[in-house]
Amino acid sequence: MFRAAILNVTGYAGAELARILALHPQVQVVAATGRSGAGKALSQLFPHLSHLSLTVAERVEERVDILFSALPHGASAQALLPYLESGVRVIDLSADFRLRDPQEYTRWYGIEHPAPAFLPLAAYGLTELNRDRLRGARLVANPGCYPTGAILALAPALREGIVEPDLVVDAKSGVSGAGRTVDLRYHFSEVNESVSAYGLGGHRHLPEMAQELASLTTDGMRPRLTFVPHLVPMTRGILTTCYAPLRPGALPPGEAGRRALRDLYQSFYEGEPFVRISSEPPATKHTLGSNLCLIYPTIDAEGERLVVVSAIDNLVKGAAGQAIQNMNLMLGLPETMGLEALALFP
Amino acid sequence: MFRAAILNVTGYAGAELARILALHPQVQVVAATGRSGAGKALSQLFPHLSHLSLTVAERVEERVDILFSALPHGASAQALLPYLESGVRVIDLSADFRLRDPQEYTRWYGIEHPAPAFLPLAAYGLTELNRDRLRGARLVANPGCYPTGAILALAPALREGIVEPDLVVDAKSGVSGAGRTVDLRYHFSEVNESVSAYGLGGHRHLPEMAQELASLTTDGMRPRLTFVPHLVPMTRGILTTCYAPLRPGALPPGEAGRRALRDLYQSFYEGEPFVRISSEPPATKHTLGSNLCLIYPTIDAEGERLVVVSAIDNLVKGAAGQAIQNMNLMLGLPETMGLEALALFP
Amino acid sequence: MFRAAILNVTGYAGAELARILALHPQVQVVAATGRSGAGKALSQLFPHLSHLSLTVAERVEERVDILFSALPHGASAQALLPYLESGVRVIDLSADFRLRDPQEYTRWYGIEHPAPAFLPLAAYGLTELNRDRLRGARLVANPGCYPTGAILALAPALREGIVEPDLVVDAKSGVSGAGRTVDLRYHFSEVNESVSAYGLGGHRHLPEMAQELASLTTDGMRPRLTFVPHLVPMTRGILTTCYAPLRPGALPPGEAGRRALRDLYQSFYEGEPFVRISSEPPATKHTLGSNLCLIYPTIDAEGERLVVVSAIDNLVKGAAGQAIQNMNLMLGLPETMGLEALALFP
Amino acid sequence: MFRAAILNVTGYAGAELARILALHPQVQVVAATGRSGAGKALSQLFPHLSHLSLTVAERVEERVDILFSALPHGASAQALLPYLESGVRVIDLSADFRLRDPQEYTRWYGIEHPAPAFLPLAAYGLTELNRDRLRGARLVANPGCYPTGAILALAPALREGIVEPDLVVDAKSGVSGAGRTVDLRYHFSEVNESVSAYGLGGHRHLPEMAQELASLTTDGMRPRLTFVPHLVPMTRGILTTCYAPLRPGALPPGEAGRRALRDLYQSFYEGEPFVRISSEPPATKHTLGSNLCLIYPTIDAEGERLVVVSAIDNLVKGAAGQAIQNMNLMLGLPETMGLEALALFP
Repeated sequence: MFRAAILNVTGYAGAELARILALHPQVQVVAATGRSGAGKALSQLFPHLSHLSLTVAERVEERVDILFSALPHGASAQALLPYLESGVRVIDLSADFRLRDPQEYTRWYGIEHPAPAFLPLAAYGLTELNRDRLRGARLVANPGCYPTGAILALAPALREGIVEPDLVVDAKSGVSGAGRTVDLRYHFSEVNESVSAYGLGGHRHLPEMAQELASLTTDGMRPRLTFVPHLVPMTRGILTTCYAPLRPGALPPGEAGRRALRDLYQSFYEGEPFVRISSEPPATKHTLGSNLCLIYPTIDAEGERLVVVSAIDNLVKGAAGQAIQNMNLMLGLPETMGLEALALFP
Repeated sequence: MFRAAILNVTGYAGAELARILALHPQVQVVAATGRSGAGKALSQLFPHLSHLSLTVAERVEERVDILFSALPHGASAQALLPYLESGVRVIDLSADFRLRDPQEYTRWYGIEHPAPAFLPLAAYGLTELNRDRLRGARLVANPGCYPTGAILALAPALREGIVEPDLVVDAKSGVSGAGRTVDLRYHFSEVNESVSAYGLGGHRHLPEMAQELASLTTDGMRPRLTFVPHLVPMTRGILTTCYAPLRPGALPPGEAGRRALRDLYQSFYEGEPFVRISSEPPATKHTLGSNLCLIYPTIDAEGERLVVVSAIDNLVKGAAGQAIQNMNLMLGLPETMGLEALALFP
Repeated sequence: MFRAAILNVTGYAGAELARILALHPQVQVVAATGRSGAGKALSQLFPHLSHLSLTVAERVEERVDILFSALPHGASAQALLPYLESGVRVIDLSADFRLRDPQEYTRWYGIEHPAPAFLPLAAYGLTELNRDRLRGARLVANPGCYPTGAILALAPALREGIVEPDLVVDAKSGVSGAGRTVDLRYHFSEVNESVSAYGLGGHRHLPEMAQELASLTTDGMRPRLTFVPHLVPMTRGILTTCYAPLRPGALPPGEAGRRALRDLYQSFYEGEPFVRISSEPPATKHTLGSNLCLIYPTIDAEGERLVVVSAIDNLVKGAAGQAIQNMNLMLGLPETMGLEALALFP
Repeated sequence: MFRAAILNVTGYAGAELARILALHPQVQVVAATGRSGAGKALSQLFPHLSHLSLTVAERVEERVDILFSALPHGASAQALLPYLESGVRVIDLSADFRLRDPQEYTRWYGIEHPAPAFLPLAAYGLTELNRDRLRGARLVANPGCYPTGAILALAPALREGIVEPDLVVDAKSGVSGAGRTVDLRYHFSEVNESVSAYGLGGHRHLPEMAQELASLTTDGMRPRLTFVPHLVPMTRGILTTCYAPLRPGALPPGEAGRRALRDLYQSFYEGEPFVRISSEPPATKHTLGSNLCLIYPTIDAEGERLVVVSAIDNLVKGAAGQAIQNMNLMLGLPETMGLEALALFP
């Protein structure tokens, strides 16, 4: 059995790590910290985790094979520094090691990067696109929930060069994406029965998306990218609708083009255990609690624009599930181990 | 008192007409038909309408000053024909008189138009953009819910020529937009806690939007238009997020451009009782039960794309409320009469 | 025009008072205070109130005909003292003047009553049961949301003596009943898709219910009363299911008993504009945004127990609407003035 | 590997059986029938089941070790007859074998029982209370969702004789409890943001509850029982609040009584893997997707009435999960096998 620890188990991503790892046959969570609730039994804070006999600690004293951090940005890199220096394998679910450029980090997060020396070592944890580097990584920057949905949706089209690098990403997220933060904006009565856009001035997942999408374009240039996230009255799930102009002639006209597009996506993701090209526009519900990403690529009615819709569970493929997928790679375990749960429907 | 009748009061749009008109000081509903429920008291079918002492009839026998049809397309034009011929003022909430070209109608609705002779007489009922024609109209084609939100959001930008005619309209609708149709797709357990896209092959509101947006462009040409509607787990409300490339130089760079954009929208809708340019991205909840359209125009983080978000209640400004706004114009009443209700919040 | 002021307009009950009074033809809100947001325009805090040109003040300086307090208990009586002493008509939506016995108040609210001298002057504002006293009242204790639903449901049965005074009140409330308090318990992700009971150790509405129900029993004795409130994933509405053993012989057996019961309820509430005996079990949705209380009395399948279900909108009949109903009485206006809105459905 | 088949996999209970069994290490679903969708791949009907390569068949031709029926009552017993006669182990999730008395069956279900000869052989599948009989059973009548929640909540109190046999069961269910039936009553727009009671004239789970509760009373007499189910705007979950007068002197007064009660429940369910006595009133969300039943027993504020709240996932412990728990017993497997999933939270 490998030994794992979770920093900040008391947020949604941390609790989800604990929930999924509870049934992992080769990994055991031996320690967990929490910003609130130190000293309490985990089962007191989260009734659904009462099988686990963990006590929330102030710090991890145990020797571990793998360390997850679900701390907020800034605090995360700070807390991880000693572990990184001692060579423990680390998966950081915060944003701290996602942007390669520390100045970009400062621009978007408003602080000096706490551990810039480790930035070059960080592997970006979008498993399907970076598997080889992840296998040997000591430090994984687990992707943001929005970038996961958007990049998986756009990667085949960008890699194959069938679209202009002029992208609109319109994402709809459940409220758990905002974390367990107590704030009037997430009060049930304010959010329920309502949809709204936010982050229009520039959401922090925008530079992350732009950086990773750039590495997928045929010329390596950053695409023109507009990203608008929306808050939707549900708990889990992100549906991402992506738009890009088709390169003239890149695909045959009419339905043949839609079929060619679908084939292109099918081959791109062939053999991927957690990506499925669906034959109907997916609903986020079809991913609830699972590590799946469902992708539906098509061409709009006028035949000139690519439209790709992807669906994930923001706490699983968009956070804890993908982190465990990466952990499996890093530990040399089968990639799907512990992640077999089917989506809960209805 | 003016006398009104409603064809098909037993759907959501019809019932909403009855609900709003119940408090209208100058108009009385004297008759209402229903596809189901003929012979029953309206209060039996809709407990919230039990103040009204209407019986659902097979047909309207009464003389009326204004006739609303909330019948489905096809059936609506068919049923309206005799009234149109006899010169009764008609407001059709179905799609039958929205497309000016009967061949386009056939293409999208799959049937011959039942009353093509009346198409040239129909005024498109997007009140804010067509007020003069509506005042004298005998036949009003009340707009679809999606076109209402999209056109109001895009009209100022198109009229002022600040964007390229290359539009993405990503709309998120509550489930009542699908009507009272009994279908597995709208079963609570299937829709709840889920977001999905639909109509990707071409939604029927697309040609309507395209037709009306064309009349707003500086050159009268149809814009390139991609429209993707989404189903969101709430009952009422449509949030529409519109994207278009800014014409280079059309607005000053940076925040000055955002202010100029906002001023442009403010002046375009100056004095409009039911359109408000909001200073924050609007939530659909802020329109619940009211005839308001809230609009938030901005420029994306990269400074190159217009993003406009609008919010309406699909059953009010997107259907019954706008119909009554048009009725007020047609009858020479103050445009806001009976439509003063503030949104229900929270 | 009468002049009104609202203390603490920034909570849900206060905002609902402002919303309803905005359309009242004889009353104008001339001042409003807020615990947060003093100095801000009301429209900034509540987009749905942007028609109103009120600025949130620290205190009410204006002369008013009627003063509403939507402050929390304790703070409310404190703030109202000077107004009460100067003879202004006051409607207190807090719990401060509901319990007649100041010791009971201290027991349940944990503080000394701030204005015990005024307790004897307070009229309990359950309009239908106390209309005569309310007409001349200077101080009205507006009922709690749960007591409103429960007392209206049980009053006819208790007054007519058809049940044993052995009551179970099982209530299901939307989340807005908890107010605009920012708390993890009301975070969307924690409340959504979940039902739970709370207040099992004794909810503060229990002694209020018990006191008022005692005045309805044939012998004036307090009934044995168990009250369990539940939190339900919706914004507005309370459904109250009440249970009591039928007195043997009080009603004929079988369906005849159910009809007699229904008749008894019908006559008890005959002519009441805001109470309706419904022929089917009501849904809270049928009261959304309206001042209605729907009541469905029946006898259980075994024929031995009364079951009464009532539905209200907790913010309207359960708070602001009933307060305005009382205001109308106090000011000599028609009781229904400004409260004509039909429920919003769906 | 044991071989299983599912009759009517296309409803919610059937699909949930398939979902849970997909990960069962010792049982494989080799065949499944569906009322609709025969000939289609299961993955086409249910995207969340696309891992499974089952085709929906008209009938089960395969030899199986265990047969589940998720058919509606009437149809179920009919379809099961040949299998029962041939000695296949059967778990019936319909109501057909729950009532021991065929006349009672006819009274509540309106039809002659299709297989009365097998009634005496049926073991009632409330696992915790009937484990010994279930182990050797060939025919298990899997309990209704409401009876599961109510009986588990009341069993310890009835068995220990601490309450009078005078019970009120007030249950709140998510909409999936109504099945996948397409009906206006379950249309999202009608159910959402609303709570209502139903089945007041006598729900079909009432006689089942009464029969089983009778076997738990100290004298074996049927208790006086009032049962009112409610529909709550969520997909899964049942919260059941049960009320019964305490027998005078059965428990010590005050907090000591509450502790004694809790101890009594703790020992009653000691060692049960799927029942947990919770220290706070449970939320249905804490059982989502898991086979747990959470129970919170207490005494009301006046000290005279037992109040017990239980929470289950209606499709798991209330249907498919409990069926699999029973299957494990029947096949001699560990009772928890395949049912280890923790609840999905949030």
